[in-house]
Amino acid sequence: MPRIVLGVEYDGSAYAGWQFQQHSPSVQAVLQSALSRIAQHPVTVLCAGRTDAGVHALEQVVHFDTDAVRDPRAWVLGVNSYLPDDIRIIWSQPAVADFHARYSAIARFYRYIILNRSMKSALYGRQSTWCAYALDAEKMHQAGQYLLGEHDFTSFRAQSCQSQSPSRLMHFVDVYRDEQRVIIDICANAFLHHMVRNITGVLLDVGMGRQPVDWPLALLAIKNRAAAAVTAPPQGLHLGGVYYPEHYQIPRHPVFAKLPADVRRFDG
Amino acid sequence: MPRIVLGVEYDGSAYAGWQFQQHSPSVQAVLQSALSRIAQHPVTVLCAGRTDAGVHALEQVVHFDTDAVRDPRAWVLGVNSYLPDDIRIIWSQPAVADFHARYSAIARFYRYIILNRSMKSALYGRQSTWCAYALDAEKMHQAGQYLLGEHDFTSFRAQSCQSQSPSRLMHFVDVYRDEQRVIIDICANAFLHHMVRNITGVLLDVGMGRQPVDWPLALLAIKNRAAAAVTAPPQGLHLGGVYYPEHYQIPRHPVFAKLPADVRRFDG
Repeated sequence: MPRIVLGVEYDGSAYAGWQFQQHSPSVQAVLQSALSRIAQHPVTVLCAGRTDAGVHALEQVVHFDTDAVRDPRAWVLGVNSYLPDDIRIIWSQPAVADFHARYSAIARFYRYIILNRSMKSALYGRQSTWCAYALDAEKMHQAGQYLLGEHDFTSFRAQSCQSQSPSRLMHFVDVYRDEQRVIIDICANAFLHHMVRNITGVLLDVGMGRQPVDWPLALLAIKNRAAAAVTAPPQGLHLGGVYYPEHYQIPRHPVFAKLPADVRRFDG
Repeated sequence: MPRIVLGVEYDGSAYAGWQFQQHSPSVQAVLQSALSRIAQHPVTVLCAGRTDAGVHALEQVVHFDTDAVRDPRAWVLGVNSYLPDDIRIIWSQPAVADFHARYSAIARFYRYIILNRSMKSALYGRQSTWCAYALDAEKMHQAGQYLLGEHDFTSFRAQSCQSQSPSRLMHFVDVYRDEQRVIIDICANAFLHHMVRNITGVLLDVGMGRQPVDWPLALLAIKNRAAAAVTAPPQGLHLGGVYYPEHYQIPRHPVFAKLPADVRRFDG
């Protein structure tokens, strides 16, 4: 059956997460319902990275299989007309060859946005986490560099994580200030459950001066989740983009230009 | 009676505008109610620039008079505890000398945010105006330069405008692209009713290639509102900041560094 790939943006505030749940609203259920109306048959979608309750996506990538023959624009404009305002298809295209949204991905990029000022935001409270303590973004950035490369991320992994291996390959961790915001751009081959939010919790403790800059080094070594910081809240977190080998012709976020050369070895 | 000055951020989506109205929710009414609880007497606030329904503020400046003696933090933390999430006091200080939020102001800065891509935003729909047509931000910027200086802005003035004079002094109009957004930063001594949204409507027509770059020149000359473009929607508009002579010691948005030297002549 022909396969269609979609780029999806969403505000996760109103949802119990990406994943379908019997008794709670999910992004997956709402999306499948809208796609099914255009396809005129039940549609199941698979995503590149499942997001938790309250987590957003700038560009989630999903695929689904359908025999329905539609103008390519129908999978965007048509589906959007059946979606609520907080979910938007931003592009669609036929899958090339054996494309799979999850298994073909070689890197995921997340962006965590912290509003760093004494008062909460009246405008962007749903899309950022508030931190009233002054953060040293430069120290947070330095701390993040200890996470680069392949490591056992047990100290940054939720107890509920179902992954077989605690090992992940971290490509970049960039922390920078943008006026009143501190932004963490983080990219790995894949992430364990709560891994970005647990790393953010650790970087926040470093940024507030509660822990030394090389704390991540000690945490990687100790392999104990209880030794690290609390999990940062979900509302600052955005799945920013997913990176696939070039031959799949999937749109790429400009941030992926920062990927190390060996990750881009499949590119022409 | 001592006078207190406040910086106020708000999301205008849920309000019929800044100004108190008998039967509609207003930012002013909600703010006065919270301030009255801390002051323990009825408080009336005056603002630097009244915003319309759905228009936001990054930094509205207001003042009020009170005999209540409170820790300065009470006018921020205390009042915020009585405010809904979409209104936030971001600073407070005692007024210096004869400060008046409206009459002491020498310049106002507005920011209009346009999401310029084929799909609506799932994340920032309440804080930006959507334009699906590709905009030429450089042409919009060039068009904006015809508005600099003192002009009769009759062609950009709402019929409902109650100002005695249609003349305003424009300090800068900067249009630039920020990834998928086109942003208009505009600053004048003061603005007529709907003036920023009417200018934005004209710049949008130029940006879409429907009108020549020098169209604003013709519109200034013709002094006829009906000759110009439609009024741009409110939800992209933000009151960005207000500029006062230095001796009032009011916090200033960094954008005011762009003000011409003669506007800054009161500074030390």
